[in-house]
Amino acid sequence: MEHLFSERVKKAKASEIREILKLTQQPEIISFAGGLPAPELFPIEEMKAVTLKVLETMGKDALQYSPTEGYDPLREKIAMRMAKQGVHAQKEDILITSGSQQGLDFTGKVFINPNDYVLCESPSYLGAINAFKAYECQFKEIDTDSDGMIMSHLESIINQTENVKYIYVIPDFQNPSGRTWSLERRKALVEIANKYNLVIIEDNPYGELRFEGESQPAVKSLDTEGRVVYLGTFSKTFSPGLRIGWVCASETLLSKYITVKQSADLQSSSISQRELDVFLEDYDLDAHIEKIKKVYKHRRDLMISTMADHFPRQAHYEVPQGGLFAWIELPEQIDAKVLMEKAVARKVAFVPGGSFFPNGGHENTMRVNYSNMPDDKIVEGIIRLGALLKEEL
Amino acid sequence: MEHLFSERVKKAKASEIREILKLTQQPEIISFAGGLPAPELFPIEEMKAVTLKVLETMGKDALQYSPTEGYDPLREKIAMRMAKQGVHAQKEDILITSGSQQGLDFTGKVFINPNDYVLCESPSYLGAINAFKAYECQFKEIDTDSDGMIMSHLESIINQTENVKYIYVIPDFQNPSGRTWSLERRKALVEIANKYNLVIIEDNPYGELRFEGESQPAVKSLDTEGRVVYLGTFSKTFSPGLRIGWVCASETLLSKYITVKQSADLQSSSISQRELDVFLEDYDLDAHIEKIKKVYKHRRDLMISTMADHFPRQAHYEVPQGGLFAWIELPEQIDAKVLMEKAVARKVAFVPGGSFFPNGGHENTMRVNYSNMPDDKIVEGIIRLGALLKEEL
Repeated sequence: MEHLFSERVKKAKASEIREILKLTQQPEIISFAGGLPAPELFPIEEMKAVTLKVLETMGKDALQYSPTEGYDPLREKIAMRMAKQGVHAQKEDILITSGSQQGLDFTGKVFINPNDYVLCESPSYLGAINAFKAYECQFKEIDTDSDGMIMSHLESIINQTENVKYIYVIPDFQNPSGRTWSLERRKALVEIANKYNLVIIEDNPYGELRFEGESQPAVKSLDTEGRVVYLGTFSKTFSPGLRIGWVCASETLLSKYITVKQSADLQSSSISQRELDVFLEDYDLDAHIEKIKKVYKHRRDLMISTMADHFPRQAHYEVPQGGLFAWIELPEQIDAKVLMEKAVARKVAFVPGGSFFPNGGHENTMRVNYSNMPDDKIVEGIIRLGALLKEEL
Repeated sequence: MEHLFSERVKKAKASEIREILKLTQQPEIISFAGGLPAPELFPIEEMKAVTLKVLETMGKDALQYSPTEGYDPLREKIAMRMAKQGVHAQKEDILITSGSQQGLDFTGKVFINPNDYVLCESPSYLGAINAFKAYECQFKEIDTDSDGMIMSHLESIINQTENVKYIYVIPDFQNPSGRTWSLERRKALVEIANKYNLVIIEDNPYGELRFEGESQPAVKSLDTEGRVVYLGTFSKTFSPGLRIGWVCASETLLSKYITVKQSADLQSSSISQRELDVFLEDYDLDAHIEKIKKVYKHRRDLMISTMADHFPRQAHYEVPQGGLFAWIELPEQIDAKVLMEKAVARKVAFVPGGSFFPNGGHENTMRVNYSNMPDDKIVEGIIRLGALLKEEL
């Protein structure tokens, strides 16, 4: 039946991260591979209370079909929360999605014809690359430094490339690099999108998890022509298991996402949307985020200091100011995929960095996550990795 | 920015059903338009109990990321439940989806290249038509009678048509016609798919809601070559608000659906899957379904008998043996879209039938739902519709 499959599916391969996550589900593995939040911080007691309240006060609505756009009180609260990032949004600008991964999938569906180009940071988020690839796009990777995309490179690529649809960026604590864009680069990005009549996809799952330094306004807040699509999620600030994210965009763009959602899954969970809404009403999500930040900052510090003590000096990394990931560059002769196999044999896992470059190469890089493991495992895992690296170098 | 949109989105229009549902959310409207379950039957108390149990016994896992394929104990229970329909499935044959609408969307994504053909019943489910159209397919409608598709017509269309990918059918209490396929037609369908090397998509949201007569085995149970994809859902037997459905298919086909789900939304809700699993463990879903059937049978009887008393004799309809819908054919000069506007002015709503024919026409048909309205509204709404029809004829 192979001949019956679509071209997009014939080309697709299962996400390496998901396959690695499966591998690392063995409990004895110390996994720095996934992007999993710390489960001990999940607000389980609060979830019990909000679920009971939802079922008692609006049980019938919570279990019934509901509008594609989402539950209005939740849309309103999300619109209000966007103000923290300088975005003046209204309920009508918000579409509730099943995690921000769905926002990425819809982005591909809304914009990409086969062989259109997507411009992205080099490296970029693997899940986004796979979501867009499913619509048969090509990628051009834009060089980045510690302030974000290099604008001269971006502009020269735009000038050289036909059928560019959008520029995909993760400006805050980027996955996988951990880097954050400067305000100047954010402004310049919007100017370039305006000049060349392109759309910007701003993916911001980690922006609220800043441990230190000054917050930058969302690119969406600098949007002068309604051409920035902002993707948000509660996966890293509340719970990924609920699968609630959102798209914030101007009516012209958002209406296409809504049409796509209608045929994709009708709507996101009626009950989960209400649970989250009641949580936002009855509890203090920002106080909860402060708790998360405190733990993650501690884990980042521990991971970085252990790396400083135990990694060979040829392994380079920056200290991320927030988010979930650190990014490591190794000497060119090291293949992190081969390293990964050896690491798993020693019961420690990470993601080889090559997967984050849509056009390949950069096999000498790796991403490590510090949010999901307790202190002793962070230390032990990094010591094991350091020993392995020293043997390989 | 119009030039940036994909071809698929430029062609798309918002689902008429969803737009009508919005219109009919005004509480004073008697709506026979949606396909909504009766909310008074939702197991709200049971949901409270299962949610508390899930959060108490496995709260961390319920709020964390989980595998794309779904929660294994739920996959196992679904596989076992498939035996009721004659299907011998294992956990590995099941992918959990966010409602069966997502299974329809993935079907399009897995099989359709632009301008490929999908064969479907005439009429067919609007939500499926829109999901497939989003991948830019064409449709050929196959004539049906009260036993299902007419096989000679199906075979002649296959012989005339290039790039046919699959045959999409709803063999039990079809949406919108309410009809159920005979065993002979089910067998013949599988033979034709085998002969021409095609896939069958069997969509079965209503099969468990049979009020009378003998159950037919699922087409999937007659599948000799692993070419039937079965789409199931708990939306009509438990709750649509949870958004839990499934795909049951052989490994060759299911692996493609899993890859597609990875990039579409990573996974369905961890907590909702566990809630449903605990419900299936601690309660008797079949007893719950018996309750639903009793209520819906009563409402069907009431709607049909009121139609018999108050509709003009030129309105033709069959009595569905289960499911949620009755289908009405009016004289050719009646345009049900125009009728709908007049009906809404009288505070009663239905779905004009033309939307269920992907290639247009048949504007003299309409679909009415009997599951969602209480007795008095069914009677009042049908009397109003009958009066309107008599004026128009």
